[in-house]
Amino acid sequence: MAAPSPGHSLILRVQVPSTTDATSTIASSVAAVGAIVTALDVVESTPEMLIVDVSCNVGDDAHRDRLISSLESQDGLEVHKVSDRTFLIHLGGKIEVTPRVSLRNRDDLSRAYTPGVARVCMAIHDNPADARRLTIKRNTVAVVTDGTAVLGLGDIGPAAALPVMEGKAALFKSFADVDAWPVCLDTTDTEQIIEIVKAIAPVYGGINLEDIAAPRCFEILARLQEELDIPVFHDDQHGTAIVALAALYNALRVVGKDIADVRVVVSGVGAAGHAIIQLLHHEGAGKIVACDRQGAIHRGRDLADEHRRWIAENTNADGFSGTLKEAMVDADVFIGVSGPDILEEEDIAAMAPEAIVFAMANPTPEVDPVAASRHAAVVATGRSDFPNQINNVLAFPGLFRGLLDAGAAEIRTEMLVAAASAIAGCVRESELNASYIIPSVFDAAVSPAVADAVRGSIQVTSQEPEHALAEIGA
Amino acid sequence: MAAPSPGHSLILRVQVPSTTDATSTIASSVAAVGAIVTALDVVESTPEMLIVDVSCNVGDDAHRDRLISSLESQDGLEVHKVSDRTFLIHLGGKIEVTPRVSLRNRDDLSRAYTPGVARVCMAIHDNPADARRLTIKRNTVAVVTDGTAVLGLGDIGPAAALPVMEGKAALFKSFADVDAWPVCLDTTDTEQIIEIVKAIAPVYGGINLEDIAAPRCFEILARLQEELDIPVFHDDQHGTAIVALAALYNALRVVGKDIADVRVVVSGVGAAGHAIIQLLHHEGAGKIVACDRQGAIHRGRDLADEHRRWIAENTNADGFSGTLKEAMVDADVFIGVSGPDILEEEDIAAMAPEAIVFAMANPTPEVDPVAASRHAAVVATGRSDFPNQINNVLAFPGLFRGLLDAGAAEIRTEMLVAAASAIAGCVRESELNASYIIPSVFDAAVSPAVADAVRGSIQVTSQEPEHALAEIGA
Repeated sequence: MAAPSPGHSLILRVQVPSTTDATSTIASSVAAVGAIVTALDVVESTPEMLIVDVSCNVGDDAHRDRLISSLESQDGLEVHKVSDRTFLIHLGGKIEVTPRVSLRNRDDLSRAYTPGVARVCMAIHDNPADARRLTIKRNTVAVVTDGTAVLGLGDIGPAAALPVMEGKAALFKSFADVDAWPVCLDTTDTEQIIEIVKAIAPVYGGINLEDIAAPRCFEILARLQEELDIPVFHDDQHGTAIVALAALYNALRVVGKDIADVRVVVSGVGAAGHAIIQLLHHEGAGKIVACDRQGAIHRGRDLADEHRRWIAENTNADGFSGTLKEAMVDADVFIGVSGPDILEEEDIAAMAPEAIVFAMANPTPEVDPVAASRHAAVVATGRSDFPNQINNVLAFPGLFRGLLDAGAAEIRTEMLVAAASAIAGCVRESELNASYIIPSVFDAAVSPAVADAVRGSIQVTSQEPEHALAEIGA
Repeated sequence: MAAPSPGHSLILRVQVPSTTDATSTIASSVAAVGAIVTALDVVESTPEMLIVDVSCNVGDDAHRDRLISSLESQDGLEVHKVSDRTFLIHLGGKIEVTPRVSLRNRDDLSRAYTPGVARVCMAIHDNPADARRLTIKRNTVAVVTDGTAVLGLGDIGPAAALPVMEGKAALFKSFADVDAWPVCLDTTDTEQIIEIVKAIAPVYGGINLEDIAAPRCFEILARLQEELDIPVFHDDQHGTAIVALAALYNALRVVGKDIADVRVVVSGVGAAGHAIIQLLHHEGAGKIVACDRQGAIHRGRDLADEHRRWIAENTNADGFSGTLKEAMVDADVFIGVSGPDILEEEDIAAMAPEAIVFAMANPTPEVDPVAASRHAAVVATGRSDFPNQINNVLAFPGLFRGLLDAGAAEIRTEMLVAAASAIAGCVRESELNASYIIPSVFDAAVSPAVADAVRGSIQVTSQEPEHALAEIGA
């Protein structure tokens, strides 16, 4: 069973006879089945009975059912209603579209809508660059998915993917004041997705591709980057690579090794793995061995897809051709973006001294992080319940904040590197240790630092001060 | 020159010598060129000079330039800066995307995003109807344009159309709490537009087509209505038709005539004209003569497009084949959705007694409304500076509020009629007269009345109470 989590938090409304130990009996019943009580609120009390709202965390649906059965087996106790707090906050969706202008009277309407708006339309028609000043394009990003690789859930379709995209939009606004809008496409055709994103682009200052399955995602990204004049980012590739690189910078500082010298094993060559390998390669990591399910990727293998061929040509100079487990022997760094439980404790023990392990498969890492930490010097995962969570939330809000502020037309590798350095730099020298190589996602300094770094890495071209936009004449 | 309007409102920062009559001199200079002062604010004062912000309305750009020249010709007066209030409120766009959930700590994140969101995704995957409960689909409408028929501006393209779509979205939220999102498409291909709207539909509970040129708009509307399971509305057709019908109901009450008996001349058979004719026909108007630039549409004409053929087959039973001006003789009702100044005062004088004139071309009506009102009993226009403004804002927010609340899958003619009746009904018997046949766009009663009427006209199918959505178990 999964550990009880605030992501699976219930409110049970129960009725019990009014006895002095009524609430403590409830609390101990909940604890007895391994659920965690977070609050008990008496909502009604009479001489005969109490109505109590019991807030508690469970592990999964079966755990919830065991909890309810256990409570109902108590004499006189009735469970009236069970609410799931995760579903409650999703009712009606997680984002809304709100006006930034008042529309209370005729003058407001004349300026924000007809007839005044016609002059703004014509200003953009005459000078298309004004769209970035006089419309939402300036601050707005499309979060585009086809619903084919959502979280660890796989191909669940565009409608079922929407709660993730709404969550992403809420994070964009909360963390970096970026307006983001979900675009969930009811098609999995590569050419059609490219065509649609190009057609909707006039409204947006950037495109964030999300949870689109590999290898389709590579083609979509490459084509859109080439054919659009706004930056196109694939979070599952770039976002993950940025944060992994940030964590690696600090982990290497902890163990005192250099990126040029370490032997790095990457497990998984999907969207994330491929982007991580490219970024490490760009940053001078000379000894990378990438593994898929058939083992190490090397020039001697017959590789059908161009992305694996790129990896074969640019990594593994020694032509190592063994299995993942064989590759682990004497490796300095393991980066896993593959599947659950593919390594054992002894594989970590076989690594070089002062090893670094990033086991990022979600929700179950490539190796048990507790076991790994008995042998490796630094261990990180994608999970929030272990130290060193490698979470894309550290990267994408600030990155797009910087891109939009600069009016960037594209994303270049230097911007990804600048973002990674900025994230790593948010851990001060005095804070850095094996359990704190990466800042918390709630560190409010991260997003502005990333935005600054990205802006700084862009050659500012056509920026004008804001007040000039509304000024005419003298 | 156009009349000075709050849609063209300036703030001029001027420096003048400190004399006792400094501000009154400014005010009279502004008035002398026909601009209208709305405020004078002294922002800085020294013994030698004053800095004054002069707020004023002008008619057009040439008028603004004359105003500035006139001011600058005064001894000692300097114009420092000219700001345009319409452009000022457009800076950065008119809408934003805001979270409806808090994301301040780890528990928030676990519920609104990973890992909790995965359970919401799977709930929708298992029961697609839950998308209307657990996502923004419940309350969200796409405002879709290709930018080919924007206001009276014509084919200005998707980027230049965006300020109008943002304004529309702001109105949707302000007037009916509907979340609306601009979709400005960089394509004018009918099939491509249909394909794109179908592909983006999972996020939306309704589609509002906007400012798409005829005849393409008819095909797009018809196909999307057939192929999507959410309501599809074309505001330039349905919205205009609803409000025109509402105004006609009340105008007929004023003059004491019946819709079945009156002879109605409609000028213009584009998107709006076609929809008005269809709705009048549905409501039993038996004597309609529609005119295009070649004059009356009748069965004897060789008509290339199917929409004109439909009109020929369903109106003008007498086969009248004259010009628009000839059709006006003895007509009871004129409805213009065509072009400026195509009729003279004598054409209105030639109408039947107690005539009704809706001259809705914008910004310049088919006939001067002041001249028309010397002969007709009721005159309405699309303009806000004459009585009886026929404005779509009266219809679309409440209509979609009703459709979304009911989870409607389509729009039927009865809903349009119900909306028109509700708008007409917002003018009380005691208020009704020739200058007040249609409520103000700021009448807060209109949108809820329209929503109620639309909900009432829908057979509710699968509605469940909201609390059930989040309830599981017992």
